[in-house]
Amino acid sequence: MTDSMISHIGIAVADLEKAIDKYRLILGDIDVEKYDVSDQKVKVALISKSYGQQDYEGGVIELLTPTSPESKVAKYLEKKGEGLHHICLYVENIEQKLSELKKAGVRLIDETPRRGAEGNLIAFIHPISMDGVLIELEEKVT
Amino acid sequence: MTDSMISHIGIAVADLEKAIDKYRLILGDIDVEKYDVSDQKVKVALISKSYGQQDYEGGVIELLTPTSPESKVAKYLEKKGEGLHHICLYVENIEQKLSELKKAGVRLIDETPRRGAEGNLIAFIHPISMDGVLIELEEKVT
Repeated sequence: MTDSMISHIGIAVADLEKAIDKYRLILGDIDVEKYDVSDQKVKVALISKSYGQQDYEGGVIELLTPTSPESKVAKYLEKKGEGLHHICLYVENIEQKLSELKKAGVRLIDETPRRGAEGNLIAFIHPISMDGVLIELEEKVT
Repeated sequence: MTDSMISHIGIAVADLEKAIDKYRLILGDIDVEKYDVSDQKVKVALISKSYGQQDYEGGVIELLTPTSPESKVAKYLEKKGEGLHHICLYVENIEQKLSELKKAGVRLIDETPRRGAEGNLIAFIHPISMDGVLIELEEKVT
């Protein structure tokens, strides 16, 4: 049995198009899906080698760039510069998982799940509880 | 067609066992494979949900901790603290890819591939050329 574990790797970049070109140089033929996440004030490019499949089993690279100086990603770029921003891991029952994590003393950014850009349920864990790694949890909604 | 793209996500941590426990809390049943990479002076724990399969199609989490203050990862922890360290992407012909990248002006850490801990061919690209992201390339050797 192989469960997919990694949904995506989030990378904060200043120039989305230039960044896409760099990943194309490394990966060759890639699928690029771009969209705005207006509530987060970011533009996103999802990079995969899945060629249009709905379900990215192998994980994708999510390039993020701010569309406003008020975006959290803009503040991140200002403070830390470009680079690895977060990882997103699949869980089966996100609500139950958040409650387990809270009980275990893990600091959550989102105590209840919310809808991600693609309709799945997502929630972020604070990096202070995860050795400096900002972790997003995602439950697939079918 | 789904090609696997992400080999692993490397995370630098101070305490390997505590970090493994945290990922177990999030992911539930996990496979953990630990080994020393003596030439890099690090101890590694590979975390997957692949349950003993040789081929981690969904990507794995590679927790890294230094075994000596001279390790590059020790220096990384000292300078930047714990957190996301690198990502490793699969390529088909690593030697040709390195030569293409070099021609395109990409700064390489390894101009020729070397053997990784699991016998595959690997090489690192300098983060200065990849928006602050340290990228490892990996060619599967069958």
